[in-house]
Amino acid sequence: MAMQKPSIPKGTRDFSPSEMMRRNYIFDSIRQVFRTFGFAPLETPAMENLSTLLGKYGDEGDKLLFKILNSGDYGSALSDEELRQASKICEKGLRYDLTVPFARYVVQHRAEIALPFKRYQIQPVWRADRPQKGRYREFYQCDVDVVGSRSLLNEVELIEIVERVFRKLGISVTLRMNNRKILYGIAETIGHADKMMEITIAIDKLEKIGLENVKAELREREIDDAAIEKLQPILELSGTNSEKLSRLREIIGASETGLKGIGEMETIFGYVERLGIELPIELDLSLARGLNYYTGAIFEVKANDFAIGSICGGGRYDDLTGIFGMPDTSGVGISFGADRIYDVMVGLKLFPEEVDCATSVLFVNLGAEEEAAALGLLRTLRDAGIAAEIYPENARMKKQMEYADRRAIPYVAIVGSDELAAREVTVKEMRSGEQSRVPFGRLAEFIAGK
Amino acid sequence: MAMQKPSIPKGTRDFSPSEMMRRNYIFDSIRQVFRTFGFAPLETPAMENLSTLLGKYGDEGDKLLFKILNSGDYGSALSDEELRQASKICEKGLRYDLTVPFARYVVQHRAEIALPFKRYQIQPVWRADRPQKGRYREFYQCDVDVVGSRSLLNEVELIEIVERVFRKLGISVTLRMNNRKILYGIAETIGHADKMMEITIAIDKLEKIGLENVKAELREREIDDAAIEKLQPILELSGTNSEKLSRLREIIGASETGLKGIGEMETIFGYVERLGIELPIELDLSLARGLNYYTGAIFEVKANDFAIGSICGGGRYDDLTGIFGMPDTSGVGISFGADRIYDVMVGLKLFPEEVDCATSVLFVNLGAEEEAAALGLLRTLRDAGIAAEIYPENARMKKQMEYADRRAIPYVAIVGSDELAAREVTVKEMRSGEQSRVPFGRLAEFIAGK
Repeated sequence: MAMQKPSIPKGTRDFSPSEMMRRNYIFDSIRQVFRTFGFAPLETPAMENLSTLLGKYGDEGDKLLFKILNSGDYGSALSDEELRQASKICEKGLRYDLTVPFARYVVQHRAEIALPFKRYQIQPVWRADRPQKGRYREFYQCDVDVVGSRSLLNEVELIEIVERVFRKLGISVTLRMNNRKILYGIAETIGHADKMMEITIAIDKLEKIGLENVKAELREREIDDAAIEKLQPILELSGTNSEKLSRLREIIGASETGLKGIGEMETIFGYVERLGIELPIELDLSLARGLNYYTGAIFEVKANDFAIGSICGGGRYDDLTGIFGMPDTSGVGISFGADRIYDVMVGLKLFPEEVDCATSVLFVNLGAEEEAAALGLLRTLRDAGIAAEIYPENARMKKQMEYADRRAIPYVAIVGSDELAAREVTVKEMRSGEQSRVPFGRLAEFIAGK
Repeated sequence: MAMQKPSIPKGTRDFSPSEMMRRNYIFDSIRQVFRTFGFAPLETPAMENLSTLLGKYGDEGDKLLFKILNSGDYGSALSDEELRQASKICEKGLRYDLTVPFARYVVQHRAEIALPFKRYQIQPVWRADRPQKGRYREFYQCDVDVVGSRSLLNEVELIEIVERVFRKLGISVTLRMNNRKILYGIAETIGHADKMMEITIAIDKLEKIGLENVKAELREREIDDAAIEKLQPILELSGTNSEKLSRLREIIGASETGLKGIGEMETIFGYVERLGIELPIELDLSLARGLNYYTGAIFEVKANDFAIGSICGGGRYDDLTGIFGMPDTSGVGISFGADRIYDVMVGLKLFPEEVDCATSVLFVNLGAEEEAAALGLLRTLRDAGIAAEIYPENARMKKQMEYADRRAIPYVAIVGSDELAAREVTVKEMRSGEQSRVPFGRLAEFIAGK
């Protein structure tokens, strides 16, 4: 077999043990919060039929799907012409997000599901995007959704989830919210109800490109100057959320949909206040989010102390399952971006120290006789749930200590002939260099108490 | 958009919330044991370069690789002829197991890794096998390996892991062990050292097809009758492990490799006895395991009370990383088969009841005023780590109770006007129908104490 210099496909990543321990800390924290809210886990296959995926993410998205070559003799029954059409040689593709597979699942299993259906899903997705800093071809999404209920309590619950997740992780964040119905009301008010998406997409860029450029873009999208003038005070609204909503009611009050959106936000903010949710929440009318299936409240979370894009976002959608033949099933959900959250936590040094350590105790291996005692003690530690190991060979002490060091193991346990006679362990705390003698029977208690 | 009847590719599965909760129980139990032994998590990408995967699993394995169509315009620079070669239109494939990506990782990251390197990896793999009962095209593997140490303590540690995992899951199992060096010694002794793999493959089938058919197969593989006669007493060895090893020492004692294998097994069994490992372990000379990279001890675990194939297996390999240019790095590992373990646990009803319940408490929704109190209580329960939710709409009581029922929620909490006045909750235990009145301030304690 030829020697190969091993590598992995561009845009993909290996996650080393220390990265994995940190990633798992994030996933476990998120999962634990999802669970206390009664959300149950779901997993769907990595591969979906291309017919499920195609046409759901726009033309650009279709191009970014990873397609899987039909197995067996994929080409024998095809003409040369047909071989040049991906649709002839591939029936399956890798999932592009967790939302479409979730909608597919709900429709396919509608008979077994109790509505409202509350699920969370933490799985990788794949996109054939051009790889660049912070953008990967394989990355995890952590989605949490409720479908089958129009109640705004669901929105409030998602806000509480955002509050709890980021409090647990120690990240100070601001939640920005808006409502697609308000955006529609604005479009209607300025006389361009048919152009809500265009206006929305332009507004979405307000923060990135500034007011003047947004105006230029609106003109390009054939929004007339009078309409743009009408829009300006809305873009420049300030004050508290309720001040903004009152002012908005004056400006777009003639739009029934707009009013409905204002009412929804008032209800949601009312709950937030009564429940004493401490998360800073800001009504931001420039928030639009690109996805065109949102129909009500939309969410976006940013870290306060670290410059990076949004680390969580989502919204209400009224007809996601419609594309699979199950109309009128409203849902609302948010998605946590694990990769960016990881970057924020590394940047702000938020990972607790113990997350980086896979083993709490390393027993030095001093040869056959001492080994027997160490192995017994190891069993006791593991019974107590303490991660512990013995260096598997009677190597030089220096080598064994270096191993403890490289693996960031906080305690090294030594059972030499002295200790054996006294039935004691010498425990060395690696960071301070401090040593203690601990009776065999009290070792687990000693380590657990540290 | 055209309506579609949604489905998933054959051989793949959706995992519903109740399946996922049970699967997570298995994964979490296994992971927890791996951790107490100091193994650290690793993840590799779903896609590997085909050059990494091809040639590692035999011709048959190569055919079972899922290949990913090159993104962009895969065919424009190719001739019609080239389009018929998968290698021209696909550079990447989905991982087929966790072992080859692990070996690739170790070689690629050799500079950063502290040897011995102890990692576990729990990820799905994909094989374009013909789907059938119990065989899927996407399934999870749970692997645990140590590389960079020849110490037999590692084998002993894996035996302890097997003991702890199945004790935790409540599955009574037997561990069968053998040693490739003994198998080589046998082949050498009967005069066919060059045919160890052929003999091994035939012996591997002893349990499945019986002694006579194994003999016939050996003859087909050009093992002469005299050799087959010499082999027979070995296949029929009985008694305790140490009796078998003594007898074996007499029969194959002239083979140096064979003796080394016997010595290894004596060492391992010696540790097992001294440590008081309670797992039943059987030296089974008919155990061979198909994979040709094993060079020492091999393991296979079967459930005692449920008929299904092996649910865990593995062994020692001396040169897995050699294929990627890093020779002389010995390792040993085992893999747990989550799908079969799941089937065993369902078959023997071993899942604890609480695994099936995503939410412990459902608050009935009785309208705006009562809702406010319920929402406050919900926050208290969640603060205490108790999974709780409120029915999001003020629906008919019957509908809400049906929801609690379908989701197997054990407690329903009711805060009506009576309860509001008394600042108490009525808690209904769904299984017994028993009702209790609990003061607001003691609800979390009441539920936690159940």
